Amino acid sequence: MSYARQMIETNPSGPAVDVEVLAECIEACFDCAQACSACADACIGEGDIQMLARCIRLDLDCADVCDATGKMLSRQTAFDMEMARVALTACAQACRLCGDECERHAEHMEHCRVCAEACRRCESACDNVLSTMGV
Amino acid sequence: MSYARQMIETNPSGPAVDVEVLAECIEACFDCAQACSACADACIGEGDIQMLARCIRLDLDCADVCDATGKMLSRQTAFDMEMARVALTACAQACRLCGDECERHAEHMEHCRVCAEACRRCESACDNVLSTMGV
Amino acid sequence: MSYARQMIETNPSGPAVDVEVLAECIEACFDCAQACSACADACIGEGDIQMLARCIRLDLDCADVCDATGKMLSRQTAFDMEMARVALTACAQACRLCGDECERHAEHMEHCRVCAEACRRCESACDNVLSTMGV
Amino acid sequence: MSYARQMIETNPSGPAVDVEVLAECIEACFDCAQACSACADACIGEGDIQMLARCIRLDLDCADVCDATGKMLSRQTAFDMEMARVALTACAQACRLCGDECERHAEHMEHCRVCAEACRRCESACDNVLSTMGV
Repeated sequence: MSYARQMIETNPSGPAVDVEVLAECIEACFDCAQACSACADACIGEGDIQMLARCIRLDLDCADVCDATGKMLSRQTAFDMEMARVALTACAQACRLCGDECERHAEHMEHCRVCAEACRRCESACDNVLSTMGV
Repeated sequence: MSYARQMIETNPSGPAVDVEVLAECIEACFDCAQACSACADACIGEGDIQMLARCIRLDLDCADVCDATGKMLSRQTAFDMEMARVALTACAQACRLCGDECERHAEHMEHCRVCAEACRRCESACDNVLSTMGV
Repeated sequence: MSYARQMIETNPSGPAVDVEVLAECIEACFDCAQACSACADACIGEGDIQMLARCIRLDLDCADVCDATGKMLSRQTAFDMEMARVALTACAQACRLCGDECERHAEHMEHCRVCAEACRRCESACDNVLSTMGV
Repeated sequence: MSYARQMIETNPSGPAVDVEVLAECIEACFDCAQACSACADACIGEGDIQMLARCIRLDLDCADVCDATGKMLSRQTAFDMEMARVALTACAQACRLCGDECERHAEHMEHCRVCAEACRRCESACDNVLSTMGV
């Protein structure tokens, strides 16, 4: 069992949403923050900065938003629906924008293909949490 | 002149929004991330965890969101209006929720009073950037 | 294969250290940042703040350091040995201090037991990267 | 008075080191994280990625380390000398490496000149805290 899942189940404050949906979203956020940080770096190493400036920028933005959202979702004490809703909405949107951009380069750059996959998974995981929250 | 302001003016990509409004928002985001991190710690030091659990939680959430938003706004290359809009909306909301909670304790705890002030300033700075973006 | 591993292998700049050792350390850093964020929250939910203040504090410190180190290790372009060395040293130490504190509470609190495990794995992963760097 | 200074003075746990030295270091860390994030972006906007790859990379590393150190220093509860020492050492070193690299470009790029200044100030602020800690 992943640490995220174990941490949810051992928290004295029960989770506000379904355990599996929540654990998957936390993991997807941290994985996406990692992939986006790595993709920005890989793009810088490619050298064609003109073509990749937007990709690097969205990678960095998406990494920051996923990082914040992953940490927020790791907290179960005094969970606030409204706070979660705006963070998840921002995160799903960041992943959509970054995933779209990475996909444009996926055919020629494998790191963009992998990163797009991490973004899609995270976007979908955020949407799933929003759904279980009835948003 | 603050570093934030100098960094905006020396960036080869011109700012997407008014320089003063943007610089103020970047500074407010970083200041609020600092104040919220410090307020969470001060609350833990107070000892009355039952009364302050929600405050600590929102402090930590707000610090994470302000941190992500402050870094995003520090980037001017390939600025994306939609990305900025969702991040600023989430940040303004995080500051509003955290500011409201801190204000409830402001009379008895000076750190909550100062932190509420930092949250109010940041919420308003985010709203100002959203306004200049025509949102 | 994990995203971290795939991102390493698709980066145009080859990794400065052994791929497996590096991938394991990146994953351990992000996992530990997650576990520590969750453990701080779980401790706040426990209510006995006097006993857990040091644990919460080290959890938050360790999460921040692991987060920074995980992102730094995700970059392969213009890798700087000295930068990596000081970050890995700080991270191993943060994990040791936090792991020691969590272990003290592990018998009575499962979240501290799981978090101590994440800290031990990350400390050891950082030490392994340092070893392959010849430090 | 800055928020950082006010937050130190209203924390129920007294500061472990001199208030002014600590406040200056917290502010320098957050300012440097901002300047480095902005400088990485400005470098990407410059277009000459071959010459600036190392600068971008160190900017991103330094921003992450300063961010973690600024948050850690904002905590006064259960302060741990050893944790502070390794974080401050890593931060001073990150600022030295990034400041050196930015300085190499300072003559031709104003954002590197401003960023080098922020790095120097932060390196020196970290060294000052280490000195007052007797390290």
